[in-house]
Amino acid sequence: MPTVTTVDISQQLQQSCATIETWFRQQWQQCHPPIYGSMDLRNAGFKIAPVDTNLFPAGFNNLNPQNMALYVQAMQATIAEIAPDLTRLLLIPESHTRNRFYFESVAVLQDILLQAGFEVRIGSLNPEIAQPQEYTLPSNRRLLIEPLIRRGDSVTVGDFSTCCILLNNDLSDGVPDILKNIKQTILPPVQLGWTTRLKSGHFSHYQAVCQQFARLINIDPWLIMPLFDQCPDVDFHDPEGQECLINRAKILLARIQEKYAEYQVNQAPFLVVKADQGTYGMAVMMIDDPEELRHLNHRRRQKMSVIKGGRQVTKAIIQEGVYTFETAGPDQAVAEPVIYTIGRHVVGGFYRLHKERGPRENLNAPGMDFAPLPLPHHCHIAQCGADSSRFYAYGVIARLALLAAARELTPISPEQSHD
Amino acid sequence: MPTVTTVDISQQLQQSCATIETWFRQQWQQCHPPIYGSMDLRNAGFKIAPVDTNLFPAGFNNLNPQNMALYVQAMQATIAEIAPDLTRLLLIPESHTRNRFYFESVAVLQDILLQAGFEVRIGSLNPEIAQPQEYTLPSNRRLLIEPLIRRGDSVTVGDFSTCCILLNNDLSDGVPDILKNIKQTILPPVQLGWTTRLKSGHFSHYQAVCQQFARLINIDPWLIMPLFDQCPDVDFHDPEGQECLINRAKILLARIQEKYAEYQVNQAPFLVVKADQGTYGMAVMMIDDPEELRHLNHRRRQKMSVIKGGRQVTKAIIQEGVYTFETAGPDQAVAEPVIYTIGRHVVGGFYRLHKERGPRENLNAPGMDFAPLPLPHHCHIAQCGADSSRFYAYGVIARLALLAAARELTPISPEQSHD
Repeated sequence: MPTVTTVDISQQLQQSCATIETWFRQQWQQCHPPIYGSMDLRNAGFKIAPVDTNLFPAGFNNLNPQNMALYVQAMQATIAEIAPDLTRLLLIPESHTRNRFYFESVAVLQDILLQAGFEVRIGSLNPEIAQPQEYTLPSNRRLLIEPLIRRGDSVTVGDFSTCCILLNNDLSDGVPDILKNIKQTILPPVQLGWTTRLKSGHFSHYQAVCQQFARLINIDPWLIMPLFDQCPDVDFHDPEGQECLINRAKILLARIQEKYAEYQVNQAPFLVVKADQGTYGMAVMMIDDPEELRHLNHRRRQKMSVIKGGRQVTKAIIQEGVYTFETAGPDQAVAEPVIYTIGRHVVGGFYRLHKERGPRENLNAPGMDFAPLPLPHHCHIAQCGADSSRFYAYGVIARLALLAAARELTPISPEQSHD
Repeated sequence: MPTVTTVDISQQLQQSCATIETWFRQQWQQCHPPIYGSMDLRNAGFKIAPVDTNLFPAGFNNLNPQNMALYVQAMQATIAEIAPDLTRLLLIPESHTRNRFYFESVAVLQDILLQAGFEVRIGSLNPEIAQPQEYTLPSNRRLLIEPLIRRGDSVTVGDFSTCCILLNNDLSDGVPDILKNIKQTILPPVQLGWTTRLKSGHFSHYQAVCQQFARLINIDPWLIMPLFDQCPDVDFHDPEGQECLINRAKILLARIQEKYAEYQVNQAPFLVVKADQGTYGMAVMMIDDPEELRHLNHRRRQKMSVIKGGRQVTKAIIQEGVYTFETAGPDQAVAEPVIYTIGRHVVGGFYRLHKERGPRENLNAPGMDFAPLPLPHHCHIAQCGADSSRFYAYGVIARLALLAAARELTPISPEQSHD
């Protein structure tokens, strides 16, 4: 197993810092970045790539609280840009009622908004929350969650009136009726929820972004993106229904093998099959050989068939597996960086760790842990030095994924994308 | 001497945080904040007020380097707002050739811009710099200063072409010919240099800002501003020429005495007389009794007559003296907070200390020292707790001064100012 070097790609990014930052500024003039996001990256040494882009991020409680001023400032700058008149915000979280970790994240997010000078109340879509409930969290933070109510063409809680909703619910269960045809601005827009969004759509945009970006700084786009393909019609319960997946997986694997040969990578290439609408690390499977798909046991079939909210999986994405050769934490567990953005700003991140998983496995699974990213200053900053160049690279890759997400919402014409 | 409490005014500001932040956002829609600034504040316990607003700040080297990410992010957000296409910046510093402290500040400022992803070169107005000179600073930073050259309707250094100049020279000596009639954008605009700017103009705007702000949150504006008056025609060399100053000083002192009585302040009120165009702490004098002005000794006359660049003082401002009852540093020296802004963002600050000066004296004098502001997170943030409310208050007062500076450039109509 190689040690993490990534010197080439990271240093190339750092050396092109002024070009890259100018380019991002131009891109954000063409489409606004989503209000927030978190990107799971994998650093394989020879390449760094995002494997998941979350536009309804949780985990704010895992960010370094010492950098609170940075989160607050980014939120102020971002809201000033997109909604300068805003005073009050209604935050709609996931409908969990017992997930204390998630509640801690919501509490930190609310705190960022309060410190940025907004009034914030929290309205739940969960019908079990019929009256305001105050939770005292393990951190001693208090969280007041109120039932969301519809009033005319607005939603609200109690007597709170606001023109803007901050959505922290990924809408895996579809857009609820209460949010349909409301006149309020919803950030990010419901179209970016998992009701309509597909991972393959995101990665198509990501691929186009990377091709454009790679031309800009003269690198091979493969060094910053996972190859992928998709099957629009799968049924993991039907043993005969895997031909599309198997055939496409074989072609994809051959393409990866070619790239591995080109770059003299000694590891075995592998694939990741995921539900195209999946989230929360559910319905994810690593395979070495496409033929495995023919002989999935009952447990794996079951696991691949259901995503969050109990929905059936009917579309799948097959992604190039990206090794992660970083380790972190007291036990030097396998780690992948998770980078957070607020508007155009990279504000921080952490390592997701898993002691019981290997460098090619999904770390977003029970037993995972978190460790601070040892950022010298911060990861959007181009510092001198090889170690810091890695963190600058993470900030760049995360923003390329953010740009892809922005283009899901505001597709740009091919002429624009080739500037 | 009272201890610093300031609980009332600080807590009032903190409690109105959402109102205040919304109001600032509205104000910045009417006029852009200057690109950067530093504000000298004084905290007298019963009141907090700015005594000087510097739009060409030095002292970036005294900011906490650990918060670099915050400065960089603020710079990115600010330039994205005012000049989204910008790639290259030409920085024009003061014409010092040996002031290492100032050079350290310029080096930090350049670093902020580089890390924000801009190309930056430094062009000097100083004719002594006839060729590029590289300085190695005590911090081991290197600073390359090049001679500024005029080419058509632009200025530049070497082969560097840029549409934007960042001015860090306060133009005390007037606008140099080389900068006249150039087509490049100059930030901040030359009109904010000391060639044209008057302290009394700034404090007139500051007074209007405070009156508007005080109505918003229902406080006495005196709690956040120094009373002042001005004399448009003074000559400190002429013993007969002080009548205007003396008469106005008497009236001003009586007004302050009234306020002190109203708030049961036990200290003796005092006045500060300053050159209306002064900077660098030059030509500043404290007086207890306006009659002192009749009997100034030769040394004081001499000191009051000349400002930076050797210019004669012809206009004076008389300001309410504001005690500073803060102490900081290992010796608990008398201290005043200095707050830095980049665009609309309060990014940090420090205490200016002086071991040999008292709570009513000018601390901007040889022998001064600096200590970090012990900000819990940062001073633009409204935290709970009395101690942090003080720092939030500093961020609010500094931004009120920033707004006054912005209005010097973009005066708004009385209707607008009364919203």
